[in-house]
Amino acid sequence: MNGFTYLTRFLSSHSSYSRLLLLSSVSTGGLLVYAESNVESRKQVVEENQSVSAKKRVVVLGTGWAGTSFLKDLDISSYDVRVVSPRNYFAFTPLLPSVTCGTVEAQSIVEPVRNIIKKTSGEIQFCEAQCLKIDPENNKVFCRSGINDNLVGHNDFSLQYDYLIIAVGAQVNTFNTPGVMEHCHFLKEVEDAQRIRRTVIDCFEKSVIPGQTDEERRTNLHFVIVGGGPTGVEFAAELHDFVHEDLVRIYPSVKDLVKITLIQSGDHILNTFDERISSFAEQKFQRDGIEVMTGCRVISVSDHFISMNVKSTGEHVEVPYGMVLWSTGVSTRPFVKDFMEQIGQGKRRVLATDEWLRVKGCNNVYGLGDCATVDQRKIMEDISAIFRAADKDNNGSLSVEEFQDVLEDIIIHYPQVDLYRKSKHLLEATDLLRDSKGNKREEVDIEGFKLALSHVDSQMKSLPATAQVAAQQGTYLAGCFNRWEQCKSNPEGPRHFKSSGRHEFLPFR
Amino acid sequence: MNGFTYLTRFLSSHSSYSRLLLLSSVSTGGLLVYAESNVESRKQVVEENQSVSAKKRVVVLGTGWAGTSFLKDLDISSYDVRVVSPRNYFAFTPLLPSVTCGTVEAQSIVEPVRNIIKKTSGEIQFCEAQCLKIDPENNKVFCRSGINDNLVGHNDFSLQYDYLIIAVGAQVNTFNTPGVMEHCHFLKEVEDAQRIRRTVIDCFEKSVIPGQTDEERRTNLHFVIVGGGPTGVEFAAELHDFVHEDLVRIYPSVKDLVKITLIQSGDHILNTFDERISSFAEQKFQRDGIEVMTGCRVISVSDHFISMNVKSTGEHVEVPYGMVLWSTGVSTRPFVKDFMEQIGQGKRRVLATDEWLRVKGCNNVYGLGDCATVDQRKIMEDISAIFRAADKDNNGSLSVEEFQDVLEDIIIHYPQVDLYRKSKHLLEATDLLRDSKGNKREEVDIEGFKLALSHVDSQMKSLPATAQVAAQQGTYLAGCFNRWEQCKSNPEGPRHFKSSGRHEFLPFR
Repeated sequence: MNGFTYLTRFLSSHSSYSRLLLLSSVSTGGLLVYAESNVESRKQVVEENQSVSAKKRVVVLGTGWAGTSFLKDLDISSYDVRVVSPRNYFAFTPLLPSVTCGTVEAQSIVEPVRNIIKKTSGEIQFCEAQCLKIDPENNKVFCRSGINDNLVGHNDFSLQYDYLIIAVGAQVNTFNTPGVMEHCHFLKEVEDAQRIRRTVIDCFEKSVIPGQTDEERRTNLHFVIVGGGPTGVEFAAELHDFVHEDLVRIYPSVKDLVKITLIQSGDHILNTFDERISSFAEQKFQRDGIEVMTGCRVISVSDHFISMNVKSTGEHVEVPYGMVLWSTGVSTRPFVKDFMEQIGQGKRRVLATDEWLRVKGCNNVYGLGDCATVDQRKIMEDISAIFRAADKDNNGSLSVEEFQDVLEDIIIHYPQVDLYRKSKHLLEATDLLRDSKGNKREEVDIEGFKLALSHVDSQMKSLPATAQVAAQQGTYLAGCFNRWEQCKSNPEGPRHFKSSGRHEFLPFR
Repeated sequence: MNGFTYLTRFLSSHSSYSRLLLLSSVSTGGLLVYAESNVESRKQVVEENQSVSAKKRVVVLGTGWAGTSFLKDLDISSYDVRVVSPRNYFAFTPLLPSVTCGTVEAQSIVEPVRNIIKKTSGEIQFCEAQCLKIDPENNKVFCRSGINDNLVGHNDFSLQYDYLIIAVGAQVNTFNTPGVMEHCHFLKEVEDAQRIRRTVIDCFEKSVIPGQTDEERRTNLHFVIVGGGPTGVEFAAELHDFVHEDLVRIYPSVKDLVKITLIQSGDHILNTFDERISSFAEQKFQRDGIEVMTGCRVISVSDHFISMNVKSTGEHVEVPYGMVLWSTGVSTRPFVKDFMEQIGQGKRRVLATDEWLRVKGCNNVYGLGDCATVDQRKIMEDISAIFRAADKDNNGSLSVEEFQDVLEDIIIHYPQVDLYRKSKHLLEATDLLRDSKGNKREEVDIEGFKLALSHVDSQMKSLPATAQVAAQQGTYLAGCFNRWEQCKSNPEGPRHFKSSGRHEFLPFR
């Protein structure tokens, strides 16, 4: 018995995406009527007969890095856990580019969710389904199984929750570029990687069929990557190795016709990384013969051509291709967007949480991984409240002792303070309170305090959308849940600076 | 670099089946117009610019057991070889039932064709395409690549041959039962096995989704196999083990709802095997709880029910199911059927070859494996010619010496003589010539000779449609091709009994 056996939904899951629907009206009864985008028979939602137990009901949406690491670390002795995900396995996504070229096999990077669940001591129930709708008012999620219609029984069901963990990741962002959905490959799921591998081989098989002109062979063997982020760059490198180490031996007659092109709208590839990394990659690609076209914006993709504007010249270019990988970034899934509108986050791009991963505007919903961002508090917004809380003797002035006393709590709420100290080498508390000339001060008033911390917020960084961040968030939140009861009776969080904060947990650091 | 990388066409190959077309008219020029079944743009056939070399052009259709073993053993120093197959890998098909349940992984049973080709010393060209039409008059095959239309260039091409090897196997036989193509699984290709595995898991995933009734779960977990041949029986056994060793641990809540049923139209499963094997299998299945329904003929399959007639009672039964495997036998591929009509074999069920694997009615086409049968000569048809050839002194009577002199040649042409001798323990030549009372004779006349051999033809057996037979045929034919030149100048075949035979080769024994 091995992981591969569980790769059940690779093919069918894609079709289920097209069946994503929007809930048109929500009744409060047990039944719910959907208006589905492609006209099918109306379906009933089955309300699950959840057993009423003393345990709090936790529903986890998603089994990627965030959801899985949460499940792995959760002590479920006091929770009744349901997991909903359209795929019944966890995938080690950073290796996806390697799967496209056969360096790593698909089954090596997946693990059945039920194996992960079994590792925890108790029983967690898993449903292979997609969440369609969150109803935060009634603490309910509506789900649909994407399993083929040949089987009997309802596909729709709802689950009641006390706590909801949203860890569904993000979806591909095409920036509404025409033709991208139809003609490009993406690299977010294991089945995407397998499809790319097949397509690469198809391009080679096609190029050795009798009767092609060299120009046709060249077009079919032109592999284009749109987007110079880590995924695109890694795929380009893998493909280059695949071509020059393996495929040239299998298809020797066409080895000189292969070309790999990377299109980047910005001026450099890997532009979110250190400049040295970015220029190393560009130079290496140049040596390898991978063409990097920077400053090009793709405006449409047809079945045989990529159309783009070259920024520097204003020129319009059409590039013929055999295969295109689109890897330009991610956007929010529709049901998360719908949820955001319900909770007053409709104007935001990504689901916002506070620094404890609690979704803003909800009391019992948590957002992890790529589908959410931590909305970091600005210290300047709270500066008066902090000053008041710190100024114990109410003399309108903060002594070094008073400041030292609240510093740890400040750092917990505002990690940017710590980043700022480290970047400026202000390692002692008194260093932070120096005046504009750099002299130490023993006391500061509110104006001096504001001035001292005025540059701190510029150190705020939003967390990168990586596997590491998602996994750490899952582990952190599981820790919070595990300590919940204990924290309720004996709160261990930082002190309040504003009355609104709940803080049973140690925050995310 | 490993085998799995090459499993390129698993998904797309299925779609290409639907594009099978029939050639409507053949012009003799370089261009050819097709009428395609699903209305697409008209396509051109590219005539390949084959280099004119001294070497004879051999085209091999198919890369299954027969084609691959032919290629493995062929000495290509005097042949220019082209291989056409819709899949660029060889599959170890007897392990397909094990792939369905994850006992064996798909990539363990496949080998890239180009790896096999490389093992021979010279260069063989491979095209991933389907043969659509054989034109025996002009020694040409018309092929179409099934690679996706996104790529540029012609998909159709033709190849000229001096010798053609047809080793394309057979296709599923539904006996025109309504609904089978739409709703049943088959188990002939690796992608079939993968699809079955996904469906089995789907059935289990569906059965644990909230809101199903037990009856619905039971239906979804009802696995039905139609056809009690080796494939069906092996799949049933594998599935039973899969369920009871692995799946019960993963889906404990539904383990008692699983049912496996095998439907057989005859009175026993494995009825082409020895009775002891057949009854052993039936008893084992009974102990394992696999229901065997014999004497049931399936008359249609709908999306949720199998309809059948029970022969013994005349009853009509409808059985609900979660998944059906259809494994009732094989039939001829359309382009082989079309070829058979062109060469006057239109009334036959399967392509017929003579005992040297030469397609009857052609001079330079060979048929191997499941797509062809060896049409064994009956000795009684040739008995006068044999007698004449044996009776060297023309005295109208055969002496033991005369008979002994031709016996080896007879056995080569008519292997049934050897089977007959062994089964009757007539081990010496004179034993064959005993009279009706069992007395040895020194001389026989033509009537006595006929009488002596009159029961021999009943020993004729058609060769089973197995991997072993196909592989042995490939090896045999490669040996023939390797010795061709030598045999032409120095024929080593058996003597002519009838003037029509060519016999440069040692025949297939």
